[in-house]
Amino acid sequence: MSTLTTWLEETLCTLNLTKTMDVPNGFTRLSFTNEEKSAHHAFQRVARELGLSVYEDEVCNQWAVWEVDPSAPTIAIGSHLDTVDNGGGYDGVAGVLSALGAVKMLKDQNFQPTKNIAVVCFVSEESARFGVSTIGSKAISSKLNKEEIADVTDRDGITIKQAMEDFGVNWQTLDNVTLPVQKLESFLELHIEQSTQLVEQNADIGIINGVACPVRLKVHVKGMANHTGTTPMHNRQDAFVSIAPLVNFVQEEALKANETATSPLVATVSTMQLKPNAMNVIPGEIELGIDIRSVDDDLKRQFAKTIETFCKEIETKQDVTISITTLVDNDSVALDPIIQGKLQEACKTVGLSAHEMDSGAGHDVMNMASKWPSGLIFIRCKDGVSHHPDEYAAIEDIEKGTTVFATYLQQQTSKA
Amino acid sequence: MSTLTTWLEETLCTLNLTKTMDVPNGFTRLSFTNEEKSAHHAFQRVARELGLSVYEDEVCNQWAVWEVDPSAPTIAIGSHLDTVDNGGGYDGVAGVLSALGAVKMLKDQNFQPTKNIAVVCFVSEESARFGVSTIGSKAISSKLNKEEIADVTDRDGITIKQAMEDFGVNWQTLDNVTLPVQKLESFLELHIEQSTQLVEQNADIGIINGVACPVRLKVHVKGMANHTGTTPMHNRQDAFVSIAPLVNFVQEEALKANETATSPLVATVSTMQLKPNAMNVIPGEIELGIDIRSVDDDLKRQFAKTIETFCKEIETKQDVTISITTLVDNDSVALDPIIQGKLQEACKTVGLSAHEMDSGAGHDVMNMASKWPSGLIFIRCKDGVSHHPDEYAAIEDIEKGTTVFATYLQQQTSKA
Repeated sequence: MSTLTTWLEETLCTLNLTKTMDVPNGFTRLSFTNEEKSAHHAFQRVARELGLSVYEDEVCNQWAVWEVDPSAPTIAIGSHLDTVDNGGGYDGVAGVLSALGAVKMLKDQNFQPTKNIAVVCFVSEESARFGVSTIGSKAISSKLNKEEIADVTDRDGITIKQAMEDFGVNWQTLDNVTLPVQKLESFLELHIEQSTQLVEQNADIGIINGVACPVRLKVHVKGMANHTGTTPMHNRQDAFVSIAPLVNFVQEEALKANETATSPLVATVSTMQLKPNAMNVIPGEIELGIDIRSVDDDLKRQFAKTIETFCKEIETKQDVTISITTLVDNDSVALDPIIQGKLQEACKTVGLSAHEMDSGAGHDVMNMASKWPSGLIFIRCKDGVSHHPDEYAAIEDIEKGTTVFATYLQQQTSKA
Repeated sequence: MSTLTTWLEETLCTLNLTKTMDVPNGFTRLSFTNEEKSAHHAFQRVARELGLSVYEDEVCNQWAVWEVDPSAPTIAIGSHLDTVDNGGGYDGVAGVLSALGAVKMLKDQNFQPTKNIAVVCFVSEESARFGVSTIGSKAISSKLNKEEIADVTDRDGITIKQAMEDFGVNWQTLDNVTLPVQKLESFLELHIEQSTQLVEQNADIGIINGVACPVRLKVHVKGMANHTGTTPMHNRQDAFVSIAPLVNFVQEEALKANETATSPLVATVSTMQLKPNAMNVIPGEIELGIDIRSVDDDLKRQFAKTIETFCKEIETKQDVTISITTLVDNDSVALDPIIQGKLQEACKTVGLSAHEMDSGAGHDVMNMASKWPSGLIFIRCKDGVSHHPDEYAAIEDIEKGTTVFATYLQQQTSKA
């Protein structure tokens, strides 16, 4: 086993704050928690061992810089270390690891880049805690409206503002985090595929054309809570009974849409709060969260409208009130074609097969792409499983991604 | 306004720990919480003002006794003071209040009973916190298996054992609470109707023949959590999609059963926990709670079997695993016909119209009836609404119930 393989294996565990990746309940490092903070500290230690200068910006993104010349352009490369509840140890981590690994490869070869290389570890990429994603990359790319999210709460009623302040963010000076466009030349990210196209296409590396950004809806249903034992069946305003058909409607309509669509669409009723959620009380209120994605923005917005129409029909037929809020509605993001070409070239140089594709998931790169030419590559992950303890990417696949990055950096930062 | 009316109005507020019953969010006094404890203290103060001797038994039921002769029989009468989340201030409270009010009426008349009268305030009647109901009355009537419930947890993971110990229960000596049969002669409870039959029948007082006890099922569904953005629609094991049709099945089958049944049946999917309940993760696991009631025990058990069959069909068709646990399955309870006759007599004496009926909700009386001759009366409540901030019973209706109790006690404890 090569030194790089061993280093990747060990550093994967280090960044995951673990001694083995075989953890039955997976990893839980929610946004702006002590667990995310500990992972950031691990990142700092690894970066310092590689001889990088480490600093934290105003939103608590971690930066580890190989500075060769303050006046030279900087290529940034990285991902995040936070996870969903009981998630895997590769989503985000593989991207940070391969960025650090690429720096290690170049340093081990005594390569002298002509540009600065900055490895970045973005804070709070996952929306699992607050329903708001990619906070760190939004902040530096001028896409974060702090007042808009300040009062959003987690399950325990803690606001984003509170959680960020507890994490070390100075709320007053937070907006200073915005990074001037000239500070970076470009941005690269690696991520596990979270699907199975690479295996199906017999490809090593996915080179991403576009990122499908979600439309997210919150559906609030108000019926009437009442005693389960004394309220006759024909005399109820059961919020759960009225809205349950929506769950299957979303699934069936999405399947139907995919029969004719050119770009795939996915839609999921993924969250639900039942009130009062007590054994002897008829559900009086429900809040559902729906996540809809496609690189075809018209298709996903049309789908959201279909859901609205269905809810209106329920309201007409049943004695409940339904209100729908759009939490998120972002255009899908096209990535930089020139960088895609250079990534193709890097793959070719090291003899890896590349497959062009779209990303069904949002990543930090979608914010970075709004300000800097950006690229995203995928590596294989087992059975496409992600956000689950069974999430797994082989160390050889992480090594392949690392090699592509090292080669890209070498090709783009060599002396002419 | 009579002195009694004023006293009932004031004491209603006292027992609800409030200055006005007009509280927009209702009352939340969950089992074995500080809120329930405070209500118990209010009960003790009111009882002492009436000259009753107050004590607490081993499960923290509150007793307030008018002892005329230690060797005379004792008639117990009472209900509970805990509530569901955001419940009303009458469910339970009206029963405790009318029992205290009846004692006040007799004392105000300088009546000398020949038997002891004990007003009881049972602890933890509602199942809202732990899914286990009527803990206090179960305990004294030898129906509580403490080991069976010890590890049941609330939403915050606190066990019943822990909550009871924090409330002041000595777990080691808890079983001593069992009350020998000779300690009481009979038991009476008053409750708000939680339905609208009394209004429909133009009756003042409901006299209950039987109490429908529930079958309660927990349905656990295991699918596969995965990323909402990257997992194609045709390749999912969405636990929510697979089980959502059960919610409507339960509603529709219950409606159907009532078309032919002699005793009504009610069935509700009343609780649900979604895992991981995150916007970008497909639901991997769900737990549903189902509450089924009818005084026709065969009907309700047959209904539970129908649900099982439906779940088996889902399991066969979809890639999920479903397990069903029966949390509760108790026979319905017939109340004492002699006491029903005496309650009829008391109603007649004071010129109130009585209506014979069954109870769709369980009450403490159902446990007491297994050991002592027991009776239950209903008073009207507005629109049948209960377990909701809008729950309301007019003070005149509470006064009617109080008068029936006072008359009953007078008739049953007068010198021959």
